[in-house]
Amino acid sequence: MFVKNAWYIAAMADEVGRTLKQRWILDEPVVMYRTADGKPVALYDVCPHRSMPLSKGELLGDQLRCGYHGLVFAPDGRCTHIPAQTHIAPSWCVKSYRLVEKWRWLWIWMGDPKSADESLIPDFHWNEDPDWIPTGGHFEIGCHYQLLVDNLLDLSHLAFVHRTTIGTDAVAENPATVSREGDAVRIVRSMPSCPAPPLYAKLIGYSGEIDRSQDIVFTPPSQVVITSRSVPKGSNEADKILEYRVLNGITPGTKSTCHHFWAVSRNCVPDPQVTKLFHEGSVRAFSEDVTVLETQQTMLDRMAGRIAWMHYNADGGGNAARVIVDKLLKREAAGATERAAMS
Amino acid sequence: MFVKNAWYIAAMADEVGRTLKQRWILDEPVVMYRTADGKPVALYDVCPHRSMPLSKGELLGDQLRCGYHGLVFAPDGRCTHIPAQTHIAPSWCVKSYRLVEKWRWLWIWMGDPKSADESLIPDFHWNEDPDWIPTGGHFEIGCHYQLLVDNLLDLSHLAFVHRTTIGTDAVAENPATVSREGDAVRIVRSMPSCPAPPLYAKLIGYSGEIDRSQDIVFTPPSQVVITSRSVPKGSNEADKILEYRVLNGITPGTKSTCHHFWAVSRNCVPDPQVTKLFHEGSVRAFSEDVTVLETQQTMLDRMAGRIAWMHYNADGGGNAARVIVDKLLKREAAGATERAAMS
Amino acid sequence: MFVKNAWYIAAMADEVGRTLKQRWILDEPVVMYRTADGKPVALYDVCPHRSMPLSKGELLGDQLRCGYHGLVFAPDGRCTHIPAQTHIAPSWCVKSYRLVEKWRWLWIWMGDPKSADESLIPDFHWNEDPDWIPTGGHFEIGCHYQLLVDNLLDLSHLAFVHRTTIGTDAVAENPATVSREGDAVRIVRSMPSCPAPPLYAKLIGYSGEIDRSQDIVFTPPSQVVITSRSVPKGSNEADKILEYRVLNGITPGTKSTCHHFWAVSRNCVPDPQVTKLFHEGSVRAFSEDVTVLETQQTMLDRMAGRIAWMHYNADGGGNAARVIVDKLLKREAAGATERAAMS
Repeated sequence: MFVKNAWYIAAMADEVGRTLKQRWILDEPVVMYRTADGKPVALYDVCPHRSMPLSKGELLGDQLRCGYHGLVFAPDGRCTHIPAQTHIAPSWCVKSYRLVEKWRWLWIWMGDPKSADESLIPDFHWNEDPDWIPTGGHFEIGCHYQLLVDNLLDLSHLAFVHRTTIGTDAVAENPATVSREGDAVRIVRSMPSCPAPPLYAKLIGYSGEIDRSQDIVFTPPSQVVITSRSVPKGSNEADKILEYRVLNGITPGTKSTCHHFWAVSRNCVPDPQVTKLFHEGSVRAFSEDVTVLETQQTMLDRMAGRIAWMHYNADGGGNAARVIVDKLLKREAAGATERAAMS
Repeated sequence: MFVKNAWYIAAMADEVGRTLKQRWILDEPVVMYRTADGKPVALYDVCPHRSMPLSKGELLGDQLRCGYHGLVFAPDGRCTHIPAQTHIAPSWCVKSYRLVEKWRWLWIWMGDPKSADESLIPDFHWNEDPDWIPTGGHFEIGCHYQLLVDNLLDLSHLAFVHRTTIGTDAVAENPATVSREGDAVRIVRSMPSCPAPPLYAKLIGYSGEIDRSQDIVFTPPSQVVITSRSVPKGSNEADKILEYRVLNGITPGTKSTCHHFWAVSRNCVPDPQVTKLFHEGSVRAFSEDVTVLETQQTMLDRMAGRIAWMHYNADGGGNAARVIVDKLLKREAAGATERAAMS
Repeated sequence: MFVKNAWYIAAMADEVGRTLKQRWILDEPVVMYRTADGKPVALYDVCPHRSMPLSKGELLGDQLRCGYHGLVFAPDGRCTHIPAQTHIAPSWCVKSYRLVEKWRWLWIWMGDPKSADESLIPDFHWNEDPDWIPTGGHFEIGCHYQLLVDNLLDLSHLAFVHRTTIGTDAVAENPATVSREGDAVRIVRSMPSCPAPPLYAKLIGYSGEIDRSQDIVFTPPSQVVITSRSVPKGSNEADKILEYRVLNGITPGTKSTCHHFWAVSRNCVPDPQVTKLFHEGSVRAFSEDVTVLETQQTMLDRMAGRIAWMHYNADGGGNAARVIVDKLLKREAAGATERAAMS
């Protein structure tokens, strides 16, 4: 079960062009491409005729032709050509999804089209802001998307999973405070007088202790923005501040896979070499997460029905997020029941 | 569910000799070999003792010895030796199947042995006729056998899947007519004044337009004979005619695999080089089908229970064939119920 | 379903040290290590927090720290540290299992801890006896553990599976006698005047015929000790006797895997070269069994629900062992029901 009435990142903007790209999203196969004038298109990737993935076909101008029997579909999903036949019933169509380009990502809406309000796209502007220097990427991970949300909302794991890049004991041993703001969850951790993690020393030349803080905002169903701020202990000199945002757009792939679209964006140290180090350090750290998350999912799968999680303070953020997602799922299920009753 | 009271090709005649060959047919493991005097034998490939595949054993003369505990079985399935024991109960046997050599194939009957009438073996004589020049082969495909039947009964796909060998737009854009003759289905397509497909130009030197026709006959449960005929447009010169039969014996392997035994046989252009081109072109085209069919099956598997096919004119042949197979399945199920009631 | 109130070999003693070793036993993941002073420890390998395998963590002295969020567990399973938190509820613990070193193996008890009586550990002293020369190893096999027990209790398969090492026709053609002694099963086979198998000729220089016997004792749930004795036909010269014990500790891994801990130990021919030949010959023979057992399991899986085994004389030992195991399983299930009723 996934929240459907929500915007999810479907792709990085430059991943989709004039070839057909398939990606599983919310347990549905989706084919994406751009029309000749660059408009992004997303269709259900199953030909209604004999279930061939449309992504195995080809573009005819702005339309998509199935590679098996040659049916042609327009960007809105209507079938526009059936070989050797002139009549095309209106029911001959595939689902089309709203696909919107914003902040250098393509955002998809797979729920009720009437509710697809672009103003609800999460504020990830730091990925496309002249004052910020972003770098980012995409991982497909073999785990349920909520395991990755849990991971990002409890950064105490930095001390153990990422100790060679961004983690120190201080991240685990300083408790975080959790607050709820509407359907958002905010987790704040302050780490005064702690050692700089290995990557920071490399990035900005920190030696000695730093004052560090993390400010994490979750918005449902699965967006997480992390603001990380560090200064030399007790200092406040502008050129010594290391501040960055980690933007995480997490999109369910299937029941046991998810997509992690990430960007790390900073407004300081405008050195391309630092951007490179940021990118490499992030890829290395996120790859450590991938290993952990896929190991965790494998154990959950193997022990299906024999697992009961225990909770402690540090789970406050992740558990609050799950409560909100459960509420949205119930609301959507109730709406579906109501619509069924009225029809 | 498969029609069991039918002859299916189990192997090409030269695939089975004095070694043990295992093949899954109608979701049962079957072991095949020949006796010293060449008679083909087919047995259920599971030792009744501890389920070892008999095909992992060895031949002792005309008999088969299990490789685990040494039980020996005769070609009729009777157990003839149990180590360290003289008494062998009559119940000690494995199922044996009728296996008949005809048209250079081995045909198996896995249903009620009393109904195994050799005269019901489909007429595939073009594979063993002095006036015809055949070439053929075998594919094991990861799809339900009916997907391959569908494929062969709607050749409009040639225009998209096989455009580099035997397909042109004409095949898709000229409608076919479907007729039923008893339990057979016939699909005929006439393509006057159309370009020669790439392979034909290579085979017989066609340039310019041709008059082309396809005459397809389906006989249940899954045999398809295609007669393809081409001449230079408006011509009828004997040495310019390209006529061939494509013989397709389709045998269910498991629920999601099938065997495609095929031969392409012609009565013209008796040049061995043309036979070689025919063989290579056919392997290439059928390999394109394998890719399509396995992609289709993968999608069906992943979307289990969420697929509804839409139908249009070109599906007439395939759908008629499915109706006939469903009727035969119901008849067999009713027969089984009746036999159970009488016993 | 596995018998839980029993000692099983979990590892060879030298497999477990100051690193973390995971092994699935009785369908549970287990992590093993030794404390600084060498005491073996076994814990349930699933962190109660978020299901990370503890075996992916690291040792902190004698304690184990989870590699995800840093929870620390003592050898008895108690949680001793939760980052950024002082309160640790008593319920924060993982199951710990008794793990006892004996006969150069580590024996685990995964059932009711109150019943874990070390005196019940099977007598496998031949693996650690100054008068005997052992060699051994471990196989993880892709089959249900009872298939391996069956295999060892009906050695008639030596004639077919192991004919290049320890098998001759005589093993199959001489019947065995089965007797039950309490919950143990004994299978004895005498093979007077039979050819020496290939490995024996190599080991001890046998030529001509020998008198050979096998004395097999099964103790539940899955230990098998084989005493093999051979002499030149009619002879009784001490230096011509080849006698050895094959010790088999069979431990269920999952429903379809098992561990085969084996040792072959002799009290004759104290030549290291002969030990080497014994080891290599045993590995070769057991590898032949692995192939057979995994083939058998694959067929059982594929034919699930369509298999019925037939039985003959040689199955007496294996079937008696299964009857005893079934009795123990029922007894444990009844005990569990009784305990549930009383609580």
